[in-house]
Amino acid sequence: MNPQVGIIMGSQSDLPVMAEAAQFLEEIGIAYELTVVSAHRTPQRMIDYAGSARERGIKVIVAGAGGAAHLPGMVAALTSLPVIGVPVKSSNSIDGWDSILSILQMPSGIPVATVALNGGKNAGILAASIVGAYEPEIGRKMDAFKTGLREKVEESAAQIEEKGWKEMLKK
Amino acid sequence: MNPQVGIIMGSQSDLPVMAEAAQFLEEIGIAYELTVVSAHRTPQRMIDYAGSARERGIKVIVAGAGGAAHLPGMVAALTSLPVIGVPVKSSNSIDGWDSILSILQMPSGIPVATVALNGGKNAGILAASIVGAYEPEIGRKMDAFKTGLREKVEESAAQIEEKGWKEMLKK
Amino acid sequence: MNPQVGIIMGSQSDLPVMAEAAQFLEEIGIAYELTVVSAHRTPQRMIDYAGSARERGIKVIVAGAGGAAHLPGMVAALTSLPVIGVPVKSSNSIDGWDSILSILQMPSGIPVATVALNGGKNAGILAASIVGAYEPEIGRKMDAFKTGLREKVEESAAQIEEKGWKEMLKK
Amino acid sequence: MNPQVGIIMGSQSDLPVMAEAAQFLEEIGIAYELTVVSAHRTPQRMIDYAGSARERGIKVIVAGAGGAAHLPGMVAALTSLPVIGVPVKSSNSIDGWDSILSILQMPSGIPVATVALNGGKNAGILAASIVGAYEPEIGRKMDAFKTGLREKVEESAAQIEEKGWKEMLKK
Amino acid sequence: MNPQVGIIMGSQSDLPVMAEAAQFLEEIGIAYELTVVSAHRTPQRMIDYAGSARERGIKVIVAGAGGAAHLPGMVAALTSLPVIGVPVKSSNSIDGWDSILSILQMPSGIPVATVALNGGKNAGILAASIVGAYEPEIGRKMDAFKTGLREKVEESAAQIEEKGWKEMLKK
Amino acid sequence: MNPQVGIIMGSQSDLPVMAEAAQFLEEIGIAYELTVVSAHRTPQRMIDYAGSARERGIKVIVAGAGGAAHLPGMVAALTSLPVIGVPVKSSNSIDGWDSILSILQMPSGIPVATVALNGGKNAGILAASIVGAYEPEIGRKMDAFKTGLREKVEESAAQIEEKGWKEMLKK
Amino acid sequence: MNPQVGIIMGSQSDLPVMAEAAQFLEEIGIAYELTVVSAHRTPQRMIDYAGSARERGIKVIVAGAGGAAHLPGMVAALTSLPVIGVPVKSSNSIDGWDSILSILQMPSGIPVATVALNGGKNAGILAASIVGAYEPEIGRKMDAFKTGLREKVEESAAQIEEKGWKEMLKK
Amino acid sequence: MNPQVGIIMGSQSDLPVMAEAAQFLEEIGIAYELTVVSAHRTPQRMIDYAGSARERGIKVIVAGAGGAAHLPGMVAALTSLPVIGVPVKSSNSIDGWDSILSILQMPSGIPVATVALNGGKNAGILAASIVGAYEPEIGRKMDAFKTGLREKVEESAAQIEEKGWKEMLKK
Repeated sequence: MNPQVGIIMGSQSDLPVMAEAAQFLEEIGIAYELTVVSAHRTPQRMIDYAGSARERGIKVIVAGAGGAAHLPGMVAALTSLPVIGVPVKSSNSIDGWDSILSILQMPSGIPVATVALNGGKNAGILAASIVGAYEPEIGRKMDAFKTGLREKVEESAAQIEEKGWKEMLKK
Repeated sequence: MNPQVGIIMGSQSDLPVMAEAAQFLEEIGIAYELTVVSAHRTPQRMIDYAGSARERGIKVIVAGAGGAAHLPGMVAALTSLPVIGVPVKSSNSIDGWDSILSILQMPSGIPVATVALNGGKNAGILAASIVGAYEPEIGRKMDAFKTGLREKVEESAAQIEEKGWKEMLKK
Repeated sequence: MNPQVGIIMGSQSDLPVMAEAAQFLEEIGIAYELTVVSAHRTPQRMIDYAGSARERGIKVIVAGAGGAAHLPGMVAALTSLPVIGVPVKSSNSIDGWDSILSILQMPSGIPVATVALNGGKNAGILAASIVGAYEPEIGRKMDAFKTGLREKVEESAAQIEEKGWKEMLKK
Repeated sequence: MNPQVGIIMGSQSDLPVMAEAAQFLEEIGIAYELTVVSAHRTPQRMIDYAGSARERGIKVIVAGAGGAAHLPGMVAALTSLPVIGVPVKSSNSIDGWDSILSILQMPSGIPVATVALNGGKNAGILAASIVGAYEPEIGRKMDAFKTGLREKVEESAAQIEEKGWKEMLKK
Repeated sequence: MNPQVGIIMGSQSDLPVMAEAAQFLEEIGIAYELTVVSAHRTPQRMIDYAGSARERGIKVIVAGAGGAAHLPGMVAALTSLPVIGVPVKSSNSIDGWDSILSILQMPSGIPVATVALNGGKNAGILAASIVGAYEPEIGRKMDAFKTGLREKVEESAAQIEEKGWKEMLKK
Repeated sequence: MNPQVGIIMGSQSDLPVMAEAAQFLEEIGIAYELTVVSAHRTPQRMIDYAGSARERGIKVIVAGAGGAAHLPGMVAALTSLPVIGVPVKSSNSIDGWDSILSILQMPSGIPVATVALNGGKNAGILAASIVGAYEPEIGRKMDAFKTGLREKVEESAAQIEEKGWKEMLKK
Repeated sequence: MNPQVGIIMGSQSDLPVMAEAAQFLEEIGIAYELTVVSAHRTPQRMIDYAGSARERGIKVIVAGAGGAAHLPGMVAALTSLPVIGVPVKSSNSIDGWDSILSILQMPSGIPVATVALNGGKNAGILAASIVGAYEPEIGRKMDAFKTGLREKVEESAAQIEEKGWKEMLKK
Repeated sequence: MNPQVGIIMGSQSDLPVMAEAAQFLEEIGIAYELTVVSAHRTPQRMIDYAGSARERGIKVIVAGAGGAAHLPGMVAALTSLPVIGVPVKSSNSIDGWDSILSILQMPSGIPVATVALNGGKNAGILAASIVGAYEPEIGRKMDAFKTGLREKVEESAAQIEEKGWKEMLKK
C-alpha cells in the first residue's frame, strides 16, 4: 500500500514527538512514510521530497521542527499539498515560542496547518481527519476514535464520583 | 453544487478577515457556505452545525474567532472532519496572543489546523489544498496559484533591479 | 445537604490542583460536588452539567482546565450562574500562558471569574466568599479564615525577629 | 434601595471602562454605588471602604485599575466579600500585561475574580450572576440576557446567510 | 545603633532571596532590621510599619514579594522614604513576570526602585549606595566593593588566559 | 547651588520623558543638571561623567535610555552612587520590553533602581525621596506631595459621587 | 566595480527598511546589489542566488523578511558566506516577535547574524564593518563614521546644556 | 600566528557556552584568543580590549553575556570591527529574553551580530564564515563543514528509513 501521509522532521532528536503521529496513523490504518529531512542541512533533499510528494501519492505532509523552524513552511512553499506543522520544543528552543511562531506565522499564500507545541499525536489525528474526509472507512474510524475519547472521560468521571477525590489522589 | 467547505466565525465583526477565505475558494472554484456561529452565544447552533457537517457533504470547516477563541476547538470536538482555525485579532484581543493560544494549544485528541493571526486567506488556501489533494482539477489549480505567486515576485524583482530601489521607494 | 458548589475539571490530571478547592470548601463547611467534565471529549455531558446546575441548587461552578482551556468559558456560556475558572499549568501548556488567556479573555457577555495559575485553593476561597456574602454563618467563617492568615504571618514575623534570619535560613 | 454592588476604580481615567459595569447593573436592576478609591494615593480611604462594605450591605465589590494594579488585590485583602478585578489598559500599561498579572496572580488565600482586559461590562455581568444565584428574579433576568445574546447572533447569521457576505462587507 | 535600612518580605518563603540584602548590609557595616510584613495578610501591620519608618530613623526600605506582588508598591504609597522592590520568583509566579510587572509598573507619583528578579543582594547594594551618597565612610566602602568586583574578574581572566579554557572547563 | 541630581539620557529624543524628572525636582526645590550622554556613541564622555559625579557633589544619577538600553547599567558600573534607570519606549523599542529588561536585569553587584516604562516623573520623585531621606526639609515636602496626591483623588471621588458617572463621562 | 554585498528581501514591502542598508553602503563606498528573493514564493531563485553568491564575488549577504521569516536562515543554509538577517516588522507580524525569533534562533551549524527589528541601517553598517575588517580604507571610513556619531551627540549635549531643556522641548 | 578572532565573555560562568566558539575555530584552523572581560566589573579593561583589537590584528570579536548583557553592545561601541553577540541564558536571566533583547536591540549606528540563545558554536561558525569570505582556504573548509552537516543528516535519514522509527526510539 502506497503511503498517503509523509512524516518528516528536521532532526532525529524530534523523533519522540513525531513518532506519535506515525503511531496514530498505524492504529487508524493509514499508510505513511517517515524520515529525516532538514531544511538547513539538506535543502536539496527537502526540495526533492516536497516536489515529488504529490506524484508519489502522498495526500498530506506532516513536518516537525524546533527553534527557528523552517522545514514546515519551506515544504509548504515547495508543494501544493496540505502541510501540517508540528512545533517541537527542542533543546535550543526558548520555551517553544520560536518553534511556534516560525511555523504558524506564514505569509499570505503559503499556509501551514499548525498544531500545538509537541503535538505529534494531534498532527497524526489531523492528517487522518483529512484522509477521513474523503475515505468513508477512515471517517468512520475517526468517529469511533472520538467516541473512545468520550468513553475514557466518562469512565474517569464515574470512578472519581464513586471513589471520591481523596481516594483518587492517592494513586 | 453542494458546499465542500464550511466557513464560520464567532462574530460578524470577524467578517473582514474570514471573507478572504471565501474569496479564495470562489476564485479557485470550490463551493462553500459562510455564516456566523458563536460558541459562547449560540452553543446549540454550534453543536447542530458541527454535528451535521459531514452528512451535508462538508469536507473541511474553517472557523475564525478572537480573544478566548473557543469556536474552532469546540467545533473540532464536535466533528471528526478537519477543522482549520483562524485566530482573529479582534478588538478585545491582547495583540492576538489570546486568539492564537486558545486555538492552537488544543489537548491531545482534538487538533485544530491553526493558521497565522488574521490569516483568513491562508485558511482558504489550506482548505483548497486539502480538497486539491483529492480532486486533481483543484490540485492543478493550486499548482497554478503557486506559479502565480512566483511570477509576481519575479516581476517585482525585475522591476526593482531595472529601475533601482530609489525609484521604487518614491512610489 | 445539597451541593452548593460544583467543581469540575477537564481531565483527571487536573485533580491535584482542583482538589484544593474541594479541601477548602470542606473545611469551611460548604457542600460541594466534584467530577470530570471535558469540553472537548464530552461536550454533551458538559451541556447537561451546566444546563441543570441551577435547578440542582448549585450556586457557583468552579471549572479548571489547561492548555487551550475551553471548559470554564463554555460552561459560562451554558449557564447564568457565576463560573470560576482555574487555569491549570498542565503538561501540554506553555508555562501556563495558554491556560490563562483562553480562560480570562472571554468576550463581552460571558465572563469567567479567573483566578491565578494553578489557583485551585483560591477558587475554593472565592466560591466560599460568594456563598458567604449571602449566608452570614459562612461570612463569619470567612472573616475568621482571614484572621488566621494574619496570625500565621504575625507568628512567622515574631519568630524571624526573635531568632534572626540566619537561624531561620538553616531550617 | 441599598447598593448591593460597589464599583471602585483607582483613577477617574478608568471610568470609561468601569462605567460599563454600572450600565449593566442599572439595566438588570441591581442597586450599586460607584466611586474612586486609590490604593496608592488614598490607602486609608481604601481600608475604610473595604472594611465597611459588608455591614453596608454590599455583596460584591468590582475594582478596576491599570499598570501595577494593586486596588483589587488590596481590597480583597481587606474584606471577605467576593472581589471582581478589572485589568484596565491604562496609558501607563504595557499592552495590559502588567494590569492583568498584578490582579490575577494573587497569592494563596486572597483570590480576586479577574475578568478580561478592559472587561468592565463583563465585571458587571459577573456581579449580577452572583446576585442572581441568590435572588431568583435577577437569576431569571440573567437567563433572559443570555437569550438576548443568542438571538442577536442568530439575527446576524440570518442576515449574512440571506444577503451574502459581499453585501455585508459593504456596510 | 539604630537600623538605617528596613528589610521586609511578603512571606517567610522569600527569606533566601532577601537574606542576601541583609548579608551585604552587614558586611558593609550598615545597621538594618528584617521582618515579615504581608500586604495581603497583614495590611494593618504594613501600614504601621511604613508609617513609622521615617520617625524610627529608617532611611531606605527594601521590600520583596512574588506573584501579584503588592508589598513594595503599597509601602511606597504609605511612606515618602525611598522603597527598593525585589521581585521574587516565588512558587506561584509565572517565571517572575508577574512579580516584576506588579512591582515595576507603579503609577505616576509612587515610584518603587525595582531591582532584578531575585536580586536580593543587589537591593542591599543599592540601599548601601544610597546611604553611601550621604555617609562618606560608607561611600568609600562602596568604592572598595567595586574595586573588589573588578579584581575578581581580573583574577579570573588571568587564570583563564594562563591555564587555557580547556583546563578551566574541567573544573 | 550645586546640582544634587544628575539627569542624563542616551539621546535627545528621550527628552520628553526625562524632562519630567527635571520638572519634579524643580518643583520640589532640588538642584539638578541635565544633559545627553550616550553609552554607545560617547563612551568616554559617559566614563568622565560617571567618574566625576561624586566629587562634583552629585548624590543620585537618573539615566534614561531605550531599546538595548546600556546607559543606566554602565553608569552604575562606573560610580558607586545610586543610579535610577528610566526605560524609555523609544521608536526602536519592542513595546518597551527591551528597554525594561536591559536596565532592570543587572548582574549581581551592579544594581540599577529601575522605574516604570517612560517613568521620567517617577524617577524624579524617587531621586527626591532619596534626598528627602537625608534632608528633612525635602522630606517634609515629599510628605506634602503625597498629601496632594491624596487630596486630588478625594476631590475626584467627591465630584463623581456628587455628579454621577454619566455626567462625568460626558466631559 | 563588482558588488561586495548582496541585499535581498522577501517582499517589495520590505524595501523601506532594507533600502537603509543600501543607503549606508553607498555613503561608505561599498558596491552592492539589491533585489527581491522570496524563500516561500521563489525557492529556486533563492537557491540560485545563494549558491552563486561566492563565485560572483559577494562577501556578505544581507537578507530581510517578516513574520515567519525563513529567507535569512535558508540563505545561510545555502551558502557559507556570512549572512546578516534583518527582522522586519511587516504588516502580518505580531509586534515583530515572529520575525525576530524565526531569524535569530537558528539551529547549531547555520548561524544568521541578526540585527535589531527593522534594523536595515544597522545591517548595512555591520556589512561594512566586515568589509572594513579586511579593507583598510573602509576600516578608516568606519572609524570616521563612529567619530561622526560621537560628535553629533556632543553637539546635541552642548545645545541642551546651553539652551536648557525647556527651550529644547519647544522644538 | 596572531589571533584573528577575539572571544570574550562577561563572566567565567559563561565559559561552557563560549568555549564552543573556540572549539570550532580550533577545528577550522583559525587563531583566536579567549578571556574574561566584564562591561560592568572591568569597564576600563573592556575599553582597552576593544580599543586595541584592530591594531592587534583581530578581525572579529565574539562577545557573550547574560541577563542585562551590555558587553557585546559596549564593545561594538568601542571598535568598528564586526562584533558577534552571544546571548547566554545565565542563572540570573529570565528564560534568556533579557540576554537576547539587550544584545539584539542595539540603536541605529552600533550593530551587534546576534546569534541564538547559548549559540556559542554558531558564533564561532559565523566568525569563521567572515574570515572565510576573505581567506579562500577557510572558505573551502567552511564549504566542507556544510557538506559534513548534510552528510550527517543523510546518514541519520538512511538509518531511520532502514531500521524504522520503532527501533530508533529504543536507543
